[in-house]
Amino acid sequence: MKARVLVTLKTAVLDPQGKAIEGALRSLGVHGIGSVRQGKVFDIELDQTDQTKAEATLKDACEKLLANTVIESYRIEFVS
Amino acid sequence: MKARVLVTLKTAVLDPQGKAIEGALRSLGVHGIGSVRQGKVFDIELDQTDQTKAEATLKDACEKLLANTVIESYRIEFVS
Repeated sequence: MKARVLVTLKTAVLDPQGKAIEGALRSLGVHGIGSVRQGKVFDIELDQTDQTKAEATLKDACEKLLANTVIESYRIEFVS
Repeated sequence: MKARVLVTLKTAVLDPQGKAIEGALRSLGVHGIGSVRQGKVFDIELDQTDQTKAEATLKDACEKLLANTVIESYRIEFVS
């Protein structure tokens, strides 16, 4: 079973990396970009075939390692 | 218009960060994870409303800055 975990900064948290990308794009001549926020994506292959169990495993992984839940939020998506 | 750009290492390219995460999860007691590959996600707000033009802008941004096309591939998704 394949899953994708998206970890992004919470909207209230400033994203200096995203701001830097906005500036860099402008100076590279790419116009029409309003705002950029950067996050992380994890493509995960799971041994489980049961979606409920897989989701529990991924939640555990996110809370323990993949996301800093103080400033980041995560979303789990299953890829068929 | 909102878009999401996913930048991931090409499958042929080794991902040491992903391997480190696999090991860390195992030692944290999270079992049932087969493999992990890490990538980047960019949540981008665009001024354009025309999807074709927006896609061209994003492709330009990816080729110039967001992705290293030698080792990474990118995917553009529009978020409604």
